[in-house]
Amino acid sequence: MTQQFDLVIRGGTIATAADIFEADIGISDGRITALAADLPRGTDEIDATGKLVLPGGVDAHCHFDQPTSDGSKMADDFDSGPRSAAFGGTTTVIPFACQQKGQSLRAAVDDYHRRAEGKSVIDYAFHLIVTDPTPQVLGQELPALIREGYTSFKIYTTYDDLKLNDREIIEVLALAKREGALTMIHAENSDAIAWLTEALEKAGQTAPRHHADARPAIAEREATHRAISLAEIVDVPMLVVHVSGGEAMEQIAHARSKGLKVFAETCPQYILLTADDLNLDGFEGAKHICSPPPRDSASQRSVWRGLANGTFQVFSSDHAPFRFDDPQGKKVRGDGASFTHVPNGIPGVETRLALLFSEGVGKGRISLNRFVALTATNPARLYGLYPRKGTIAVGADADLAIWNTTREVTITNDALHHNVDYTPYEGRRVTGWPETVLSRGEVVVQGGTLEAKPGRGAFLECGAPDTQL
Amino acid sequence: MTQQFDLVIRGGTIATAADIFEADIGISDGRITALAADLPRGTDEIDATGKLVLPGGVDAHCHFDQPTSDGSKMADDFDSGPRSAAFGGTTTVIPFACQQKGQSLRAAVDDYHRRAEGKSVIDYAFHLIVTDPTPQVLGQELPALIREGYTSFKIYTTYDDLKLNDREIIEVLALAKREGALTMIHAENSDAIAWLTEALEKAGQTAPRHHADARPAIAEREATHRAISLAEIVDVPMLVVHVSGGEAMEQIAHARSKGLKVFAETCPQYILLTADDLNLDGFEGAKHICSPPPRDSASQRSVWRGLANGTFQVFSSDHAPFRFDDPQGKKVRGDGASFTHVPNGIPGVETRLALLFSEGVGKGRISLNRFVALTATNPARLYGLYPRKGTIAVGADADLAIWNTTREVTITNDALHHNVDYTPYEGRRVTGWPETVLSRGEVVVQGGTLEAKPGRGAFLECGAPDTQL
Amino acid sequence: MTQQFDLVIRGGTIATAADIFEADIGISDGRITALAADLPRGTDEIDATGKLVLPGGVDAHCHFDQPTSDGSKMADDFDSGPRSAAFGGTTTVIPFACQQKGQSLRAAVDDYHRRAEGKSVIDYAFHLIVTDPTPQVLGQELPALIREGYTSFKIYTTYDDLKLNDREIIEVLALAKREGALTMIHAENSDAIAWLTEALEKAGQTAPRHHADARPAIAEREATHRAISLAEIVDVPMLVVHVSGGEAMEQIAHARSKGLKVFAETCPQYILLTADDLNLDGFEGAKHICSPPPRDSASQRSVWRGLANGTFQVFSSDHAPFRFDDPQGKKVRGDGASFTHVPNGIPGVETRLALLFSEGVGKGRISLNRFVALTATNPARLYGLYPRKGTIAVGADADLAIWNTTREVTITNDALHHNVDYTPYEGRRVTGWPETVLSRGEVVVQGGTLEAKPGRGAFLECGAPDTQL
Amino acid sequence: MTQQFDLVIRGGTIATAADIFEADIGISDGRITALAADLPRGTDEIDATGKLVLPGGVDAHCHFDQPTSDGSKMADDFDSGPRSAAFGGTTTVIPFACQQKGQSLRAAVDDYHRRAEGKSVIDYAFHLIVTDPTPQVLGQELPALIREGYTSFKIYTTYDDLKLNDREIIEVLALAKREGALTMIHAENSDAIAWLTEALEKAGQTAPRHHADARPAIAEREATHRAISLAEIVDVPMLVVHVSGGEAMEQIAHARSKGLKVFAETCPQYILLTADDLNLDGFEGAKHICSPPPRDSASQRSVWRGLANGTFQVFSSDHAPFRFDDPQGKKVRGDGASFTHVPNGIPGVETRLALLFSEGVGKGRISLNRFVALTATNPARLYGLYPRKGTIAVGADADLAIWNTTREVTITNDALHHNVDYTPYEGRRVTGWPETVLSRGEVVVQGGTLEAKPGRGAFLECGAPDTQL
Repeated sequence: MTQQFDLVIRGGTIATAADIFEADIGISDGRITALAADLPRGTDEIDATGKLVLPGGVDAHCHFDQPTSDGSKMADDFDSGPRSAAFGGTTTVIPFACQQKGQSLRAAVDDYHRRAEGKSVIDYAFHLIVTDPTPQVLGQELPALIREGYTSFKIYTTYDDLKLNDREIIEVLALAKREGALTMIHAENSDAIAWLTEALEKAGQTAPRHHADARPAIAEREATHRAISLAEIVDVPMLVVHVSGGEAMEQIAHARSKGLKVFAETCPQYILLTADDLNLDGFEGAKHICSPPPRDSASQRSVWRGLANGTFQVFSSDHAPFRFDDPQGKKVRGDGASFTHVPNGIPGVETRLALLFSEGVGKGRISLNRFVALTATNPARLYGLYPRKGTIAVGADADLAIWNTTREVTITNDALHHNVDYTPYEGRRVTGWPETVLSRGEVVVQGGTLEAKPGRGAFLECGAPDTQL
Repeated sequence: MTQQFDLVIRGGTIATAADIFEADIGISDGRITALAADLPRGTDEIDATGKLVLPGGVDAHCHFDQPTSDGSKMADDFDSGPRSAAFGGTTTVIPFACQQKGQSLRAAVDDYHRRAEGKSVIDYAFHLIVTDPTPQVLGQELPALIREGYTSFKIYTTYDDLKLNDREIIEVLALAKREGALTMIHAENSDAIAWLTEALEKAGQTAPRHHADARPAIAEREATHRAISLAEIVDVPMLVVHVSGGEAMEQIAHARSKGLKVFAETCPQYILLTADDLNLDGFEGAKHICSPPPRDSASQRSVWRGLANGTFQVFSSDHAPFRFDDPQGKKVRGDGASFTHVPNGIPGVETRLALLFSEGVGKGRISLNRFVALTATNPARLYGLYPRKGTIAVGADADLAIWNTTREVTITNDALHHNVDYTPYEGRRVTGWPETVLSRGEVVVQGGTLEAKPGRGAFLECGAPDTQL
Repeated sequence: MTQQFDLVIRGGTIATAADIFEADIGISDGRITALAADLPRGTDEIDATGKLVLPGGVDAHCHFDQPTSDGSKMADDFDSGPRSAAFGGTTTVIPFACQQKGQSLRAAVDDYHRRAEGKSVIDYAFHLIVTDPTPQVLGQELPALIREGYTSFKIYTTYDDLKLNDREIIEVLALAKREGALTMIHAENSDAIAWLTEALEKAGQTAPRHHADARPAIAEREATHRAISLAEIVDVPMLVVHVSGGEAMEQIAHARSKGLKVFAETCPQYILLTADDLNLDGFEGAKHICSPPPRDSASQRSVWRGLANGTFQVFSSDHAPFRFDDPQGKKVRGDGASFTHVPNGIPGVETRLALLFSEGVGKGRISLNRFVALTATNPARLYGLYPRKGTIAVGADADLAIWNTTREVTITNDALHHNVDYTPYEGRRVTGWPETVLSRGEVVVQGGTLEAKPGRGAFLECGAPDTQL
Repeated sequence: MTQQFDLVIRGGTIATAADIFEADIGISDGRITALAADLPRGTDEIDATGKLVLPGGVDAHCHFDQPTSDGSKMADDFDSGPRSAAFGGTTTVIPFACQQKGQSLRAAVDDYHRRAEGKSVIDYAFHLIVTDPTPQVLGQELPALIREGYTSFKIYTTYDDLKLNDREIIEVLALAKREGALTMIHAENSDAIAWLTEALEKAGQTAPRHHADARPAIAEREATHRAISLAEIVDVPMLVVHVSGGEAMEQIAHARSKGLKVFAETCPQYILLTADDLNLDGFEGAKHICSPPPRDSASQRSVWRGLANGTFQVFSSDHAPFRFDDPQGKKVRGDGASFTHVPNGIPGVETRLALLFSEGVGKGRISLNRFVALTATNPARLYGLYPRKGTIAVGADADLAIWNTTREVTITNDALHHNVDYTPYEGRRVTGWPETVLSRGEVVVQGGTLEAKPGRGAFLECGAPDTQL
């Protein structure tokens, strides 16, 4: 080997989406340049003997510093958010540049770059959120943005300030087809939710647990079927985000069995929480308010089956950082008012990987390869970041997480690094934790300490989605 | 890199079941010891610039020199069979040591080793075929054989000299569960086939095309559902071999959606032939007699969907080498008599990979990663040969096929290396061919020439099946 | 028998939805008062020996003299429409009182009564069409109208002047639940149709056959799934009208298998026409423009299966009488313009029964009992007219059709009695025809002649829907 | 009305499978000759004012005096069995003439006639049980017996002395097709049951509750799918008897959705008992041992759905009368030994109708018309007894049950008329009871007293099955 390595990670067990093998990893200029049984000494060395070396996670669904319109405020920005992610073994995040209705999508992107600038400790890309697909947006802004590296966008079927009607959904899907982009969809029937919500409020049923009553699985299933149908008419791949359970999954699996390119994502809350968690004493249940809401234990089993059998390709956090006890947080806004005033979303960017590793790989529900695929390789492929991100292979960025697979950790919010004042997983014990995290060959986290400077993370232009998973 | 390489394959594009990347491959002592951007010169060098380097194929379903009881004779033994496989890019074959009813399974294994001894040019393992699960076989022979490296066995629901009844199937499945082995099942309802066959013969409908009438998809679906149900009762993984189309697939997909560990294999004949191919002039249709028979174009589309969406994990040849024009072959035995006298099975060990590559990867129906998974990685995992076989990773055997992806080849039997006098794919054009094939770092095939000695192939003891695909 | 009969129908074979038996029918004061083996002579007598006596048909989906907003005009009013129905063996019709957006529903009902007054030769009820469910309509008009005997209403998901959004659909369903009414829904995704239509027009594809391209089965399936989901959330029975084939049927059958009270109707065009019939020379294809459009032969087979196995409860005509060659008709409005200018709908009120009898009962696809259930008993039950209408039982109105089951008739428009200048079934031969038709014991049609006075038909107040079919 | 009536039932509300109406019923010579609003006085009169008059039940699955081969003995013969049936509102029973393996089917029929001769108080037909389909049986005995009025036969996939293998099943189905008979099948996988049973016995798990463990729903589903597949290959209608729950129902519903003529029966035990009822103190659980065993509450809900939505056409008792505390009964044979020694089957011929009426019609789960269809009309049609039996129509036998729909009855074995020493429904309260029961116009049961002579019941020759339900 004629080359010299800046860093050699020695003696670890490496897992990709397909393989598990022991090798040294040679890193030069931030990239993996060698995988070999016995590499020469690098400028730096990390001993990974007895450890598991995985691709750093790609969290393809998280919200940082995203403007809101309801008086709430996201607690994590591009400083705390990516840092928290890094502590959890994630090395790439893809938050959302969200168009405001009536405004330019380009302006939203520019604004979001300003918010991100100089803060992130790991690399990041942007999804777009299209809320106002005007001719200007569809005809000029989006095609240009796609060419510039914003190749995926999320659309909503719910929330008044975000939702598109069917015609708009079709137009966005048609554009995605023309331009080779990937559409992500939040699928819940808005009108059904509004009607149920009004009925609940009229009946005085405003406690947090009624958030789940207002957003039943049927409403999610309906919008999922509708989105699939519209994508089928347009004939374009699509991804359904944060699928909560069996009703929507049945639609997705049926579409896939017919050969449609429908992809799906789920999140930690749908394997670990249920609607009962919205029914805690005081207003504590509000901590678990997110949409779609967690369902029941049968849904959890369905989601696990879907993680194991390929119905799901992506496992993301949907980190939506709202503080609980804060003037702009869940309790103050909702308590005494209604669950409808509680900002939707829960934090999880730091705990995503350890929870799935411990509950999934550790308990034999999914293989280690599937874990890597769900948390890193597949999102990198689907969102056009592969092969730079999402795997351990020659030529890839040296974004790595070195896991101690036997370490037992009790999750407490005190030990987390986000800026939210609670975690839904307080007190939960996991086995396995990513102790050392590298981004482009640089140690970012080591032994519980941040070793890298905020702002070192780079913006990533996304390429064409790989929809041949 | 302190190590010295016996061989460096330089500059190729490497694909595994998960990744595609460019790297040099360093090989020492028959194993892959380095994958790197720029390796030092090896003792030998192969220039793979512009070529695709894939794991050598694992053909997990092929028949060589297997004793028959009906007067027919297999044309390929452990000399011609593995050689033909190697010319097609396959580096591991797993034929079947078949117990004769009333005899010892151990004796069958011993006999089969004698037949294999000193002949194969590539490595090989044995599946067992259990036809007589006596207490002796279940209580002693099989457990011992499993421990010795025969960790998978095939059972039949059809053919009088092979078939097991439901109780015997259950006993074999229960043993597989106890001992950690994998059961493969040929699923067709024997009684329905016998009844239909007798009716056809009574009506004088004995031409080859009636072979397909005698074995309808419903009979395959029934036995598939039955096998799945018995495995569900026993609670053990199982693999259904040579699935021909949508009826059986629907059962398998439904089982998988419920979380059952049911795996499935298909073969080239089910994506490229139909029952119409049994209806050629003269007795030519007999060339395409195999069981289950090829179905129709809708079935072909179903099978392609299953290859793409994960219903199938394994793509094998089911190479069953009976000559056409030969005293022990298809024509002589069947012509003038009945389709029932035609030996069942068609050749394909050499054409398997190029056909799937050209029709599948080349035409965009499956990804290159899926191709590798179906033809190499998954069978290696399921049958306990991974990580030694089935991938390109540090530590794996250097079993490699270097593909020229743009080479156009017209398949003709003259150019093939099996000992059968026809190919079902005569005249079919493919794009992409494995030009150089290595087994444990040794060039076996190069430029259309066999470069290695028959007999160099080693017997492989299989480990525990990996059923967490 | 102390009573005296105004009329005895003697010696016929009677069929109901459950039974077939021979009996005399005694009629007094317009009602059936006796079914017996041997009745005394009545004031009048009809000899039905060798004939089949069926309940007069209930056509629960037909349009007469309904105001349109696009310049087209319905050719049949309450004179010609019911007369045509009667000649086809139908004795009850339920056309639609259609609210105009922005106007009162009560006003629409009053107007429709004026249009009907004194014209109909057979009895009639009204469905309502709710196009503008204002608080006034939902809170006052509809509840009052339901109490007055308008217990079913149709809503649309398509057509700009008719369609409701999801919230409005839910409100109507919720009202139907509160008040015990039945909602009928026209299910096609409006936005998808609009988008496809614009694309077709942009491409110059404006011929009648493109009407079918603009309204694909997926758009129908989507709206069907959506409607079912909304009804599931509200927890109320619902009926999907004019279902065209397998895609929508699969949704309905799945819902029913889960125990939901989802009912479905289909029409002659979906078993006898295909999209190819929209592709005739000249502009003739426009004669078959209706929505949803007829599909293909596989859809026809699906619909037949659904008629036989209970997926469908109702078989209606969806008679929508637009002339072809007329200033306000299909040809003048559409030719030279676009399929979008062609009034939607085809005639069929007179041919409905004979077509289903001949193709269904005559060819063994459905039983005679099912025929009666689909065409008379079930619509009467679902729309609250049972037991007065829809069956032959003591106490029921003597609405009867006496069929000559062996008579062969070639359908020609010349022989029909509607006011439309074509029939989609021109030249089709049927076996079996209702030769004598009675309404409340009075002979309305006999030997091809109208024997009763227009205007004798009475308005029927509907009772509560019977959703326990 | 020129005729004179032997009996007039006056003022009742009559229900058929399709209709509900008020009428007097005129009866002459044992047949219904008039249904009318106001009949002249008959020789006899029954006042049914305020009562419900239903067709007498047809119990198409019951066992009386059937020889057994295991030392057990049926407690009811053709005296007590039909009498008990009559007290429960049933007027036709169809028990089984069972061939012994190795013997003639004709001999079994002759023997069974001897057993029936002169005993039954109501009419009866015979199903056959084919256990040994020899060429003699298939070629001569069965065709002759079918012509003589034995047009349905049951076959088994389980029980060593009864079961057929797949080839035999096919042969019987093929004969049924040729001769126009209907095959009923008991579907459970025999080998799976045997294997599970042996494992349970080996583990000492011999208590009654393990009967349910030995016969899981999967084993029933498997045999159901197999039977459907064989019938599909032969292309002949078939009926699956005593279906216990969702697993088998899913197969049946799927087959029906594809247009196959697969019919299904269920029984009271599958809506009212669960496997928990096999787990009572002492050996009491043995009272509920039947095959397939009752399942769980989810299965009960599935069965109710199937009764309501048409998956089931027939509701029978499967009355199998074994005493509990008796030398030849359940306790003596099984206690201290194993559940395998307990005779299979439970009594229910007298309680069938009241249980379904009270739980089904009374609680709004099924309509009254469906009740009639399930318990009388459909079995009469399927087994070729219609229109003589199973309905209330002119020309039908006057087999009637006059129900007091408000009477509350607590079921106790003391009050029942079978010869079994327990009822599985002891203490259960029902609302509605058939107080007066007539067979061919003769009062058989009135006010809790038997009013007719044993032996008056006639043997019924069955006609061709009507499979167009």
